[in-house]
Amino acid sequence: MNTMSNSQSAIRNPQSLIRPLVRELHPYVYGEQPKIKGLIKLNTNENPYPPSPKVLAAVRAAADGRLRLYPNPTAQALREKLAKLHGCRADNIIVGNGSDELLALATRAFVEPVAADVNRRKARAFTSAATVQYFTPSYSLYPVLADIHGAARNAVPLKSDFSLPGLTELKSGRGKPSRAVRDGTPNCWNFDAALTFVTTPNAPSGRGYPTRELDALCKAQRGVVVLDEAYVDFAGENALKLALKYPHVLVARTFSKAYSLCFQRVGYFVGHRDLIAALHKIRDSYNVNGLGQIAAEATLDDLPYYRAKFKKIIATREWLSRELTKRGFRVLPSQTNFILARPSRFSAPAWLQSLRVQKVLVRWFDRPEVKDYLRITIGTAAEAEALINAIRKILMWR
Amino acid sequence: MNTMSNSQSAIRNPQSLIRPLVRELHPYVYGEQPKIKGLIKLNTNENPYPPSPKVLAAVRAAADGRLRLYPNPTAQALREKLAKLHGCRADNIIVGNGSDELLALATRAFVEPVAADVNRRKARAFTSAATVQYFTPSYSLYPVLADIHGAARNAVPLKSDFSLPGLTELKSGRGKPSRAVRDGTPNCWNFDAALTFVTTPNAPSGRGYPTRELDALCKAQRGVVVLDEAYVDFAGENALKLALKYPHVLVARTFSKAYSLCFQRVGYFVGHRDLIAALHKIRDSYNVNGLGQIAAEATLDDLPYYRAKFKKIIATREWLSRELTKRGFRVLPSQTNFILARPSRFSAPAWLQSLRVQKVLVRWFDRPEVKDYLRITIGTAAEAEALINAIRKILMWR
Repeated sequence: MNTMSNSQSAIRNPQSLIRPLVRELHPYVYGEQPKIKGLIKLNTNENPYPPSPKVLAAVRAAADGRLRLYPNPTAQALREKLAKLHGCRADNIIVGNGSDELLALATRAFVEPVAADVNRRKARAFTSAATVQYFTPSYSLYPVLADIHGAARNAVPLKSDFSLPGLTELKSGRGKPSRAVRDGTPNCWNFDAALTFVTTPNAPSGRGYPTRELDALCKAQRGVVVLDEAYVDFAGENALKLALKYPHVLVARTFSKAYSLCFQRVGYFVGHRDLIAALHKIRDSYNVNGLGQIAAEATLDDLPYYRAKFKKIIATREWLSRELTKRGFRVLPSQTNFILARPSRFSAPAWLQSLRVQKVLVRWFDRPEVKDYLRITIGTAAEAEALINAIRKILMWR
Repeated sequence: MNTMSNSQSAIRNPQSLIRPLVRELHPYVYGEQPKIKGLIKLNTNENPYPPSPKVLAAVRAAADGRLRLYPNPTAQALREKLAKLHGCRADNIIVGNGSDELLALATRAFVEPVAADVNRRKARAFTSAATVQYFTPSYSLYPVLADIHGAARNAVPLKSDFSLPGLTELKSGRGKPSRAVRDGTPNCWNFDAALTFVTTPNAPSGRGYPTRELDALCKAQRGVVVLDEAYVDFAGENALKLALKYPHVLVARTFSKAYSLCFQRVGYFVGHRDLIAALHKIRDSYNVNGLGQIAAEATLDDLPYYRAKFKKIIATREWLSRELTKRGFRVLPSQTNFILARPSRFSAPAWLQSLRVQKVLVRWFDRPEVKDYLRITIGTAAEAEALINAIRKILMWR
């Protein structure tokens, strides 16, 4: 029961209390988490395997009187373990409430907002210092973060096969500082952008980028570069060394996907300690919940369990890719725990609906570059077989 | 091992990549969490009693395969339970990663930053739209949030007994819009400030504010008011009804202190759905970890356990206040789970040190208004007795 009186609402319009920037925002659309019994959920890139029994035991054992205490404010023990793993120091690491929190913090630490000045926003005369840059398609959160912060987005298309444009191609637009133009029009690459996000391997394409290409890009870039390696454990190589080589490069990792801890919200950045220290300054004091810290620490003590699962997921990915190809799907090569596949016969949204009727949930994005594709999370071998069976049924019936 | 080469650091100074605003920030200083065996920890206002056995059982039971899945992005089940408890609707509620996250979100949703314009910042010619306002002393996070956002702080002193200035007193400064002046100089109250934080009951004074005084203040205020009720379960009254009465008033609550869940980071706001919707737009998509949601839901199913503990803590508070008074301390009346007490004989920092030697940790703030006081968290009856014994020893020896 909302007891707000009409008279008061009339006097003070709550909309007028909200910043114009925030009023105009569209919220981020996240993958569906439906509660349909027996549904096979291949839509949000979660790991089909549970955390290791040792991790679950560690969390259960910690669910005691300590819950009344504040967690360690810097996730110190976890940072020390991560530093050991990556061959760096604990002050090269910040842990976040999922890597999403850190991506947002990076936007606020390294990019100037221009939101307060509505005229400048309307004129879209943004400077490089106010620019968040990324390739498209990639993680759909980046433009949302730019908008929330009141920064400019510079979205630059990948090549048609979703590979990285070479430096020469990017430089051909050099000297013409990018202006945000209407959606869909290719923008020039800005080597001075305050912040550049690169999802590697990429989502939703699944494509991995060679470290030497990323190195060349980082070397040419004058602002901060975040290499978002959320899916890297399913790839053949990673670019972590670039975060330790260049003072302006941060690598983002997460315990969500590969380490089956979405529920507990733990991600981290590796990079130069000055950039890491800047992020620490602006985060919430106790940003990482205690049981999440404990689960992540226990995860690092049991990596062989997870590596065995990565192998299984990769084997399932390759099997599924072959089976889908046999059935007329055009499957892009994937270095992740999902594949992007272009179905034949019917449109991608029609396939989405038909598969849902068969109790298999996949994901479709209503964006020009990928609207002909389905993104399919790699589940267990049994789930992959169920998907193929559902596809066979659909192909028979229609 | 940091493999950063000197030549690269020379080429690209990482400090130059950080926004000037962020470079200049001092980080928030949180209460110490030392690892000294046998230490009695009365410094961070944690509840001395563990969560209810039913809550611990619910968390343990949930530590299973579901950790691999994303938590509910809006904490829907928890919001529905909270709505029932408070007689409002689920869309009047947002749950945060601790109430700290929500205080930061409120700053970003309702206050314009002026950070980008260094000249305006230096001139400190802030408008009301860029002003975060609060009484001093209160929660030390508010100025930090203003600084991080690049907004102006308007810190207005409480009366000398830490009670709220009356409307007449506040209005005597009316018509003179506040300018941020050098620290320590009393500022005028600004009835148009974009955002006003009121900790009620207050920290670190422990004093409760009558709801009718808060109602009068809210009624006169034209910007958003957040009534931060982190400690309200230890008070005689609460002001939740004001969040349902006024479209510009939000009430902040947390599961940390009264409900022994600091470790799990769960807080929430109650208020007009338009303001709540604005906060939802700018938060991280999955901001509240899953086990925290489950723990908070189980807490709401077992409120009698907690209410019995509140009674115990209040009884200990009253006993401790009497005992301290007998020993020459001037104890302020408290409506919280801590007390602010002015010791005699030695200075407050000398007491802090002496008590630490006795393995009792309390808190002292190096701020002009409270530098003569100690803030002492109410522990168990046994911990309160240990504190009194330590004080007796110190008074005997010195």
